Amino acid sequence: MKDVKFNYNPHISVDCVVFGFDGEKLKILLIERNIDEGKEFYSDKKLPGSIIYEEEGLDTAASRILTELTGLKNVFLTQFHSFGDPQRSSNPRDVNWLEMTTQTKIGRIVTVAYIALIKIDRKIVFDSESTTAKWYDLDDLANMKLAFDHNEIALKALSFMRRFISLVPNALFELLPKKFTMTELRSLHDIVVGVTSDVRNFQKKVLQTPGLIPLDEVKKNVPHRAPKLYSFDKRKGSKIFF
Amino acid sequence: MKDVKFNYNPHISVDCVVFGFDGEKLKILLIERNIDEGKEFYSDKKLPGSIIYEEEGLDTAASRILTELTGLKNVFLTQFHSFGDPQRSSNPRDVNWLEMTTQTKIGRIVTVAYIALIKIDRKIVFDSESTTAKWYDLDDLANMKLAFDHNEIALKALSFMRRFISLVPNALFELLPKKFTMTELRSLHDIVVGVTSDVRNFQKKVLQTPGLIPLDEVKKNVPHRAPKLYSFDKRKGSKIFF
Repeated sequence: MKDVKFNYNPHISVDCVVFGFDGEKLKILLIERNIDEGKEFYSDKKLPGSIIYEEEGLDTAASRILTELTGLKNVFLTQFHSFGDPQRSSNPRDVNWLEMTTQTKIGRIVTVAYIALIKIDRKIVFDSESTTAKWYDLDDLANMKLAFDHNEIALKALSFMRRFISLVPNALFELLPKKFTMTELRSLHDIVVGVTSDVRNFQKKVLQTPGLIPLDEVKKNVPHRAPKLYSFDKRKGSKIFF
Repeated sequence: MKDVKFNYNPHISVDCVVFGFDGEKLKILLIERNIDEGKEFYSDKKLPGSIIYEEEGLDTAASRILTELTGLKNVFLTQFHSFGDPQRSSNPRDVNWLEMTTQTKIGRIVTVAYIALIKIDRKIVFDSESTTAKWYDLDDLANMKLAFDHNEIALKALSFMRRFISLVPNALFELLPKKFTMTELRSLHDIVVGVTSDVRNFQKKVLQTPGLIPLDEVKKNVPHRAPKLYSFDKRKGSKIFF
């Protein structure tokens, strides 16, 4: 072995990429940090994430931190990739903030990233004065400069989700409300897969999905003709891995 | 945030699960550690892996460490999962060994695991007095107690490979020699997928694979009738992700 020093204060964090769907657009859950640096006040956005505790497993840390920062509990988080570019913590603001919140000298940080697909009507709460959890349009991500390498992590999560859903299309239902219209399902499908489906063919194909249940209900409070509602029974559909 | 201390000397390592196929069995590349503890001498096995350097990306670290411990260069390593159970470094021998080799106080270690499928005839070299790299039968893994949680990592890599090959069957060719017999391909397929294929049906199906090339050659130095050789042209076959 070369004469290398390993006491460079490395740390391990987890970050959560949580996707939702509002009926029209894909959304990502981000934390707004409001930081008083003494001389200056600034605000930016980041993924929900933080340093893991000493005696904590990675999955446990991801769940704990997501709950602390957003109030969300029992979210099915799947680990999808770890990020360890030495440059990911090159912005002094990110490191200062972390050192301030952890009261620890922080060198390098490797983060283990998790993904979750959730229904957007779940209640988000935030109990900190300095952070706020909110849904943002995924389309706007390109114009935001998130903390650390969180833009890269979010994009990798998006491509992971796309690949996953091309293999397990039923995972789409995780993003829909319990009762949804055919238009909502098609919009979501088209955004995720990156296609424009024919309305009739799509409906014909989808109605053959085991577990898809047409309801004797229509959507209320809509401007035009009230569309029929559907639900999806996981137990009857193919296995959903998310 | 709770009053938590983060200065618990966490470290980040990478570990590589390298699979090969000897014509009959799946093999895994392991490092034999021979350790002189002063009072006692002992020997055990582990995955090729180590702590990452301060200024090194994860992929770079995995390649460097695999080369240092096995001599293998330009191996296509894919990150598949990170392991961070706090108990994974609970064996004092593992920690002592790491502290000895790194000359650093080691607390918790999270490891980022990589997988590679390689041709078993690649040259393995080892230049250390205290370690030896060798192929072992994957079947024997259940009877070996590897260092840290390396048994668990190897099993997770195996199930990752199985799932991957069920989606991208062409990845199997990474494990075969450049020229292979139909029997070798079928044995490998059956081991990985966990089935017993019908000889004729298998051959019929495989011969339709784009990129599979029947050669005007037979395998030499075999006891019975010399079997025909085949090769596989990646560029003509489906995309291989590994």
